[in-house]
Parts: sequence; structure tokens; C-alpha cells
Amino acid sequence: MGSATIFFWLQLPNVTKSYRTALTITGIVTLIATYHYIRIFNSWSEAFTVASKDGGDYHVKLTGAPFNDGYRYVDWLLTVPLLLIELILVMKLPQEETVSLSWKLGLASALMVALGYPGEIQEDLSVRWFWWCLSMIPFCYVVFTLAVGLAESTSKQPSPAAASLVSAARYLTVLSWCTYPFVYMVKSVGLAGPAATMYEQVGYSIADVMAKAVFGVLIWAIASEKSAVEESGELLPN
Amino acid sequence: MGSATIFFWLQLPNVTKSYRTALTITGIVTLIATYHYIRIFNSWSEAFTVASKDGGDYHVKLTGAPFNDGYRYVDWLLTVPLLLIELILVMKLPQEETVSLSWKLGLASALMVALGYPGEIQEDLSVRWFWWCLSMIPFCYVVFTLAVGLAESTSKQPSPAAASLVSAARYLTVLSWCTYPFVYMVKSVGLAGPAATMYEQVGYSIADVMAKAVFGVLIWAIASEKSAVEESGELLPN
Repeated sequence: MGSATIFFWLQLPNVTKSYRTALTITGIVTLIATYHYIRIFNSWSEAFTVASKDGGDYHVKLTGAPFNDGYRYVDWLLTVPLLLIELILVMKLPQEETVSLSWKLGLASALMVALGYPGEIQEDLSVRWFWWCLSMIPFCYVVFTLAVGLAESTSKQPSPAAASLVSAARYLTVLSWCTYPFVYMVKSVGLAGPAATMYEQVGYSIADVMAKAVFGVLIWAIASEKSAVEESGELLPN
Repeated sequence: MGSATIFFWLQLPNVTKSYRTALTITGIVTLIATYHYIRIFNSWSEAFTVASKDGGDYHVKLTGAPFNDGYRYVDWLLTVPLLLIELILVMKLPQEETVSLSWKLGLASALMVALGYPGEIQEDLSVRWFWWCLSMIPFCYVVFTLAVGLAESTSKQPSPAAASLVSAARYLTVLSWCTYPFVYMVKSVGLAGPAATMYEQVGYSIADVMAKAVFGVLIWAIASEKSAVEESGELLPN
């Protein structure tokens, strides 16, 4: 995540001015994630300790310090609206549409994260499902808006390469976003204990790398391709 | 490793735009390695403690905390595909070939690292050999593709200096890559205990410095030489 941030920011001079804000935000998203993953790493290390070694196998026990999954939700509350804004900015829509889409998708996605948290910290399965369902309302709105909006935008891109990158960003968005509600369900379907916690953490981590770093590389590739097209366009007689 | 990163990034303005992404990634590889070597260093320090001093000799014993060699594999999972991509980028092949080679070699090398890990954490020798053999399949594919591809590419370089640097990169790649499977075998041939662990760590560390920092310097030299040739070419009447 941290390396992705540096990559995006070092690429700033290589794209035209119109795409620099999008690329700056792309790097901020992975920077915020880097910070929270350090917090999550430390919280995880403090929650478990190696109790004994039996042959090649280590036995791990709880230290009593809680593993704080709240860091993820604080991270998402900040990064998910920013992720949507970086995508909207790289599309280079008319200014009015950019502002209105940023507000609508930004607020809906923050609401989605906020509604997910009360369920995440619950052990009562029916309460978990209740908040999951509430959170899915803004989730469906955002994913549907993106899927439709990006499909329209694909045809308006300035080159076939840009169009195919926007199309890849569209599929990656839908795929990576849909991972989260399924990972959330790991505990809602009654799985419990250390294995469930481990699957949940591995699942969220993979989804985060896809939705932030890999998605960011696509945003950079779109910005880079569109910059090249615009620059070569300026050199033509028309 | 950290110093190499700073060197590569400070050299960014000295190469032409076409080679900046390659040089950015070269610095990211050594940055990711720096991070993991700090983790490896800390894990090593926590796993051993000085028990007593007897004349000039220190006696070291295990603290019970495991030495976590997993950091190397996480490092390789990220850096090995990136290393291959930096090499492909500095070759400046047609865009389609760049994308297809990056995917093929990137995925094959990630698979190679992933298949090595289950064997590395095993004490059963036959299981170690099983995973070593599986991991050698993508290894051979990558090394063979590089050796052949770089041989062809050497003749297409814009100057004799660039051609001899690409040829050096080719030998360094094959030589440093072939170190890893031999170091892996230190424990597979039945060596065990502190000495085997020490040889393994020293071997991997030397191979890493060659494959990342020294290799990176070659990438920089190629980018630098080709930039100079391209810039002087622009000044010629044709």
C-alpha cells in the first residue's frame, strides 16, 4: 500500500494537469490504508502470543488485549468516498456532474461503512444480519450507479486503450466491492473462533489490496493513456 | 537496499520520460525489501538472546519467539514480479508485447514464490523436495524466457554500450536467480540446526542484494545510456 502511494505520487509529473488531482487522491487512499494496516498489524500482534512449540507447530493463545477491528472501519470511512472521487475525477466529466456525483456517491458510501460497523462488533447473529441489510441499501445504490455510469462513460473515452482500461476499472470495482459483504457474512453464517477471524482478516485484506492498490494502478493507467492522447492531439494541426 | 531506493529516485530527472516508470519501480522493489529486512532483523533479534559470555565467546539461546521467515516470501511475492516488470519496461518493447510479457512473467514468478513457501516451513525433507520441484516449474519458465528474450533484445539495443549492459543484466539475472533454489536446498539435504539456518539467511540475503540492488543499478545504467542515445538522436538532422 505504501509503495503504491509512492508510485502514484512519483508519476504526477508524467500526467497532464487535469489528472493530477485524481492521482494525488489515489496515493492518499493507499497512504491512509498503510497507516491503518500498521495499526491493525500492531493490534493483532498484541492480541496473540506464542504459548509453546510442539515439533514444527507453534501454539498461539490470546493475551487478553482485544484485537481492534475498528481501524478498518475508520479507514473505510475515509478511503471509500475518496476512492469514488478519484474514479469520478479521472473520468473528466463536466464540472457540475463531477461535483454532484462526488457528493452523492461519497455520502452514500460513508453511510454504507457507518451502517456496517454496529453489526461487525456484534456476536448476536440476527443483529449482525440486521445491520448487514441496512448497509446493503447504500451499497447497491453505489455499485449500481458505478456499473451504469462507467458503462456509458466507456464509449466516450478518447482512445480504444482508454476505453478498455475504463471497462477494466468497472469490472474490478464491481468484483472487489462485492467481496466485502461476503467476507462480512463469514461470521454471520455462524462460523466462529480463530479460524473465522483469520478468514475474515485475510478476505478483507485481499479485497482492500484489489480495491485500493490494484484499482489505483488502473486509475494511473487511465490518466496516463488519456494524457498521452491529449498531448498528441495538441500537436496535430486540428 | 534503502540507499539504493534513494539513488534510483534521485536519478529520475536524469532519464527520459520513457524510462521513469522502470526506474520508479526499481526503487519500489528495494523499498519493499528495506521494509521486510527491518521486519526480518527484528524477528531475528526477538528469537535469540545472549545467554552467557565465556571468554570471548557469546552463547546464544532461543527465546521461544519464532523467527518468522515468512517475511521473505511476502517480500518476494511483491518484488519478484515487479523486478521482472522493471526489466521489461527498460527494454522498451512495443506496448502490446510489454503488457503480455508483464502478465505472463509476473504471474509465473508469483506462482513460483507461492509454491516455494509450503516447503520452506516444513521439517519433513520429502515434503520440502516436493514443493521445491513444483516451484521449479515456473522458475524454469521465467529464467528460460528471460535468457532467450534478453539474448534477442541485446542485438536491438541502440548502442554498443546499451547492448553490453543488457547482456550483463541477462547474466546477473540467471546467476542471481539460480542462487535461490540452491540456498533452499541447504535444509533439504538434511543440514539442520542453527548453522543451517544461518547459512540459509546469509545465502538469501546475498542473493537479494544481487537480484534487487545490483540488478537495479544495471537497470538504471541501461535507462541512462538509452536516454543519452535518444537525446543525442533528437539533435541530429534526421
